[in-house]
Amino acid sequence: MTPFSYHNPTRIEFGPGKENNIGQWLKEDGIEHILLVYGEGSIKKNGLYERVVDSLKLSNIKFDELSDIISNPVLSKVYEGIAMAQSANVQAILAVGGGSVIDTAKAIAAGTLYDGDIWECYEGKSEITSALPLYTIVTLAAAASEMNGNSVITNEATQQKYSIGSKLLNPRLSIVNPELMQSVSKEYLVYSASDIIAHALETYLTATDHPHFQSRLVESIIKSVIELTDRLIEHPEDYHARAEFAWVSSQALNGLTTSGTGGGNWPNHMIEHALSALFNIPHGAGLSIVVPAWMSWYKQKNKAHFERFAKEVFGKESAEEGITMLKRWYSSIGTPITLSQANIPKERISDIAKNAHSLAVVWGMGELYSVEDIIAILEGA
Amino acid sequence: MTPFSYHNPTRIEFGPGKENNIGQWLKEDGIEHILLVYGEGSIKKNGLYERVVDSLKLSNIKFDELSDIISNPVLSKVYEGIAMAQSANVQAILAVGGGSVIDTAKAIAAGTLYDGDIWECYEGKSEITSALPLYTIVTLAAAASEMNGNSVITNEATQQKYSIGSKLLNPRLSIVNPELMQSVSKEYLVYSASDIIAHALETYLTATDHPHFQSRLVESIIKSVIELTDRLIEHPEDYHARAEFAWVSSQALNGLTTSGTGGGNWPNHMIEHALSALFNIPHGAGLSIVVPAWMSWYKQKNKAHFERFAKEVFGKESAEEGITMLKRWYSSIGTPITLSQANIPKERISDIAKNAHSLAVVWGMGELYSVEDIIAILEGA
Repeated sequence: MTPFSYHNPTRIEFGPGKENNIGQWLKEDGIEHILLVYGEGSIKKNGLYERVVDSLKLSNIKFDELSDIISNPVLSKVYEGIAMAQSANVQAILAVGGGSVIDTAKAIAAGTLYDGDIWECYEGKSEITSALPLYTIVTLAAAASEMNGNSVITNEATQQKYSIGSKLLNPRLSIVNPELMQSVSKEYLVYSASDIIAHALETYLTATDHPHFQSRLVESIIKSVIELTDRLIEHPEDYHARAEFAWVSSQALNGLTTSGTGGGNWPNHMIEHALSALFNIPHGAGLSIVVPAWMSWYKQKNKAHFERFAKEVFGKESAEEGITMLKRWYSSIGTPITLSQANIPKERISDIAKNAHSLAVVWGMGELYSVEDIIAILEGA
Repeated sequence: MTPFSYHNPTRIEFGPGKENNIGQWLKEDGIEHILLVYGEGSIKKNGLYERVVDSLKLSNIKFDELSDIISNPVLSKVYEGIAMAQSANVQAILAVGGGSVIDTAKAIAAGTLYDGDIWECYEGKSEITSALPLYTIVTLAAAASEMNGNSVITNEATQQKYSIGSKLLNPRLSIVNPELMQSVSKEYLVYSASDIIAHALETYLTATDHPHFQSRLVESIIKSVIELTDRLIEHPEDYHARAEFAWVSSQALNGLTTSGTGGGNWPNHMIEHALSALFNIPHGAGLSIVVPAWMSWYKQKNKAHFERFAKEVFGKESAEEGITMLKRWYSSIGTPITLSQANIPKERISDIAKNAHSLAVVWGMGELYSVEDIIAILEGA
């Protein structure tokens, strides 16, 4: 095992109705005034907004509101939230939504206390040293943002989809009520599945050290996601499957899978960020396009572990068969596996590769992945 | 998944030499004066004591010392430590050792701030509401005490081996350097293996809910412990195996395996505590005696999951075969599976059962396990 630090201080409260305690839990932490951040209004239609607001009022928690956070969340909303949080002098941020809302809330939590333009930190030019405490109520299981310190934001002016990661941005408390996820569409369910699998798979295949237990953990995550997705497509109302899907999604990107493995790296996310920065496609859809293409391009570099993946997850012998099975499964659930399925023209591959490479540089992978490498990967998609 | 709370705030620093940073890390947390707690002197022989003291001095951390903590640690040492911590007005406790040292340090951390006799909390008559922060440097992988809030202490006057559990007792920081474990004897290695397996197995077999991912996690732990123990018996110097063994032992009892399972309960630990309270045998040795006997007694109550265990861990079909394979493996590594192998006379079964039942009452299992039930289990051992 490679030396590592593991620290995940986020408290998870998991189960039906737990969101009704949010006011009380904030109060117990001495918090009296928050910024409430949410998306485009589905929480107003399904009654969640009202329950949260009732709980806040019952505990006399004052709140300002920032709404209309979109998928692939944008920097302008972050700036808007920072201005609100600063002028209202809030003590904490409460995010109610999926990964996009939580990632925006994290950017605001950091940006409110940052002396300068928070985008500098996403560009890797500076680091945060403090942040407001963050609370979340999760409505979509995919990003694991509720249990990690990562935030991905798109700068719409420069078409850069960049990220930060800091222990300071781990939510203090995340409430996961799987009932809130039962209305997630089949489309978003399968994109979420693709996202979770990529979280587990990328670092598993790029790690420099492969402790057996850590490999088993990743294989357990991937096998569970495949089974649970198939079950939820058939039975969207299956609470038990929905709940386990939510829990497994948190486990896939909370620091556990990469402990002792050397950490690995994130070429698929790097390329996907370029895809969704330029074409605004759902993150999970972009990943199911990139992952098999990258796997085919990369497989000779870690052949033994690709074979292990094929065997443990799909009961197959060769690396190539493992990739084929994964592609076949992606197709079976209806997430795209080619650029053309997502209406991305082949002529734009060079633009995508340049955008991706600029992120590779920020992430310290600029020498591992040249623009030509990224073009070669994308030509396989 | 059954509703649950998960919160494990312990930071793990894992790898060779990490203990040399302890002074600096304490200083970063604003700590200037600690109580250093350790065992019977092995850390003075192998140089660890000197390295720790050097690191403390380098960062100007003052320290008082409590040594000679024994296996199955006793209440009188806890009282001694509390008196020292109170009179020196220390800000934190640093435990350097295995589970016994860490459990003693937790009792001191809680008892120093408790208004009354800390043993009341172990008896279940009261609860702690505060504790000094705890830091650990782990020298034996078994108890997972470095990554949970549990403490087990023996009251030698009353022959009661009781426990407390509180989030307040999760170490703030635990340093795990697998090199420090390379001198652990074969005897203690196999007792540790038995302890870790019991941590994973008991709640797996007694849970009321069996999410598939959670089951896979437990099976991964048990399979890994079996493989790693076999490897370490052959090659005690194998750093990689020693490291993975240490990490897996932390995962077996840090709150992860029981999330969403309803929690299960602890009949084997309950009975083993009576064994080691009365006969002072190593905890892991007691567990390898109790576990197979309890499994044979209990197997009809959760047949499907016993069969799953047999299949996933040993590739067998029936519950009975799973138990036989586990017993055979215990014997192969040299940990006892009968009372007579540990020189415990059959005539004392009734005394053991009464002692165990008094703990069952404290743990809320008094109605699940009568004295007669416990006698029946022990007669199978």
